[in-house]
Amino acid sequence: MAAGDTTITVIGNLTDDPELRFTPSGAAVAKFRVASTPRFMDRQSNEWKDGEPLFLSCTVWRQAAENVAESLQRGARVIVSGRLKSRTYETREGEKRTVIELEVDEIGPSLRYATAKVQKMSRSSGGGGGGFGSGGGGGNGGGGFNDDPWASATPAGGGGGGGGGRSSSSFDDEPPF
Amino acid sequence: MAAGDTTITVIGNLTDDPELRFTPSGAAVAKFRVASTPRFMDRQSNEWKDGEPLFLSCTVWRQAAENVAESLQRGARVIVSGRLKSRTYETREGEKRTVIELEVDEIGPSLRYATAKVQKMSRSSGGGGGGFGSGGGGGNGGGGFNDDPWASATPAGGGGGGGGGRSSSSFDDEPPF
Amino acid sequence: MAAGDTTITVIGNLTDDPELRFTPSGAAVAKFRVASTPRFMDRQSNEWKDGEPLFLSCTVWRQAAENVAESLQRGARVIVSGRLKSRTYETREGEKRTVIELEVDEIGPSLRYATAKVQKMSRSSGGGGGGFGSGGGGGNGGGGFNDDPWASATPAGGGGGGGGGRSSSSFDDEPPF
Amino acid sequence: MAAGDTTITVIGNLTDDPELRFTPSGAAVAKFRVASTPRFMDRQSNEWKDGEPLFLSCTVWRQAAENVAESLQRGARVIVSGRLKSRTYETREGEKRTVIELEVDEIGPSLRYATAKVQKMSRSSGGGGGGFGSGGGGGNGGGGFNDDPWASATPAGGGGGGGGGRSSSSFDDEPPF
Repeated sequence: MAAGDTTITVIGNLTDDPELRFTPSGAAVAKFRVASTPRFMDRQSNEWKDGEPLFLSCTVWRQAAENVAESLQRGARVIVSGRLKSRTYETREGEKRTVIELEVDEIGPSLRYATAKVQKMSRSSGGGGGGFGSGGGGGNGGGGFNDDPWASATPAGGGGGGGGGRSSSSFDDEPPF
Repeated sequence: MAAGDTTITVIGNLTDDPELRFTPSGAAVAKFRVASTPRFMDRQSNEWKDGEPLFLSCTVWRQAAENVAESLQRGARVIVSGRLKSRTYETREGEKRTVIELEVDEIGPSLRYATAKVQKMSRSSGGGGGGFGSGGGGGNGGGGFNDDPWASATPAGGGGGGGGGRSSSSFDDEPPF
Repeated sequence: MAAGDTTITVIGNLTDDPELRFTPSGAAVAKFRVASTPRFMDRQSNEWKDGEPLFLSCTVWRQAAENVAESLQRGARVIVSGRLKSRTYETREGEKRTVIELEVDEIGPSLRYATAKVQKMSRSSGGGGGGFGSGGGGGNGGGGFNDDPWASATPAGGGGGGGGGRSSSSFDDEPPF
Repeated sequence: MAAGDTTITVIGNLTDDPELRFTPSGAAVAKFRVASTPRFMDRQSNEWKDGEPLFLSCTVWRQAAENVAESLQRGARVIVSGRLKSRTYETREGEKRTVIELEVDEIGPSLRYATAKVQKMSRSSGGGGGGFGSGGGGGNGGGGFNDDPWASATPAGGGGGGGGGRSSSSFDDEPPF
């Protein structure tokens, strides 16, 4: 459980298909990025125009991760609710950088421009062994997973173009996508 | 456009199937109620228990209303984002009452316990003649509809069991469900 | 602790001075009402106009209650963050009514049109015996207080003008103001 | 006016005194950073512990900027409400970086652990010539200021330790602090 988290709701579109992985212990985790484009009234033309989009990297865990990967594709308009988190990592040059990301509590496809056929999952399936409480909306954000599904994919010292590096976060459940 | 609205995101379950109606000019509007149940840690039993649910009446307009009616049923877990509104009405006894409701901007089925097959709607269909802007997330809340889809259903002075009465709101687009 | 609460931030003005009371065990609790007035662009006059205000009843507990009573007066513009709660009560006629209120986690005077001289309180004072954790922003909302500062003020069966009645909430810490 | 912005409320403490500057046309703008520390229940010790803090850079404009600079110091606990924005800049090495920041709509000192003596400002003063609408809570985010209070402080090509560089944002009112 946690208190004092900074919660946020973002409405936008997936910039790519979600990427699904599994921790060594079998817990699912998916990552994706949402672009949210505000609009503003241009006083000269008296027309609505697109503003600068906000891009936010999102992580979702367990059964919801599998559901996201199965249900949502690039371009899908979504409503995402979660907690804003700082993540600090070190570049290969030894420079520390901090990024702000979203730990997802709830996500769904927006029905503004789309319909959806909803299929409830049996809770007993629980593929990942992670257990999936009958949780309230809020707080259980993957805490307790101490393994890293990207550990083997991003060996220490590896990484391509400067974006790599390892998390210095004390929470080992935030994978360095 | 509007500014200074009180926005909110609610996560919960539909207490009934959404009710869809059309204004005389053909604009769709749907109403439904969401029950959001918080949970708290009971210190004596050291177990999570359900708290008192929050019930919130929600209204959604135009294409989104039709999509909601087609996609969501009673019990569905949803993420709803919108603006909190006071609505004042008069009972048959002449007593004024004020209720707080949610004018929905975006809604979607939660993928926490379910998958969804998403089907994008062609925007040109626009059944209701209401026009359906390529709107951002925020502000277009049904303003401009000056007809009442419930006008014939709730004749003046009528009403069944105390829940009737007419809205004294200055916005005629808020139907007295 | 709690999870799955519906959190909200309201910006508006106090409709009256806050009302401060104490429970028999000495815990402070204050109640006040906030009016939040949205504005919308009137397309005919091309001017901003005031929309319908949203009125929200708010409750705040312990040291923060005392600070609110000392710092804020009627008309003050405030930022209020908390959790939305349903409260059901019974009228003298035996009719059940439900209202939506705000359980405050944090509140402060807005600096949009005002300055403020801030005076940090010594935490050890803790007038109310209620203890005042070094709490995070979120979750400790007065749970655990089982006495009612309004108990003597609203004797059973009493009450003045229809607004009275007793709370049927299972949380005895929500006073029937 | 704008729609579809991603709004957020952050509760935390100022990491430093706010820094106040003025644009060439006289509009005030202040920048500061808020650290918000969530807490979590440690299951082994059964105690609350501090989680990783979230750091968020914030910008506030006009009269509110002056009020913030006068009222708040390092360490002050605040409630901040605003819109999340991406800002992209280029380092001296020509590398593009994107940071997420908060454009403040409302801010105030928290009354959780402090009292405040509030002094309403006369609106007619309006030092900056920027005009200060009787704005609602939401949307007026400094748009329209096309000058940069930091322009002279950070000459093109200058900058000290890698943090410099110029904004590539299309909004010239977001200063490259």
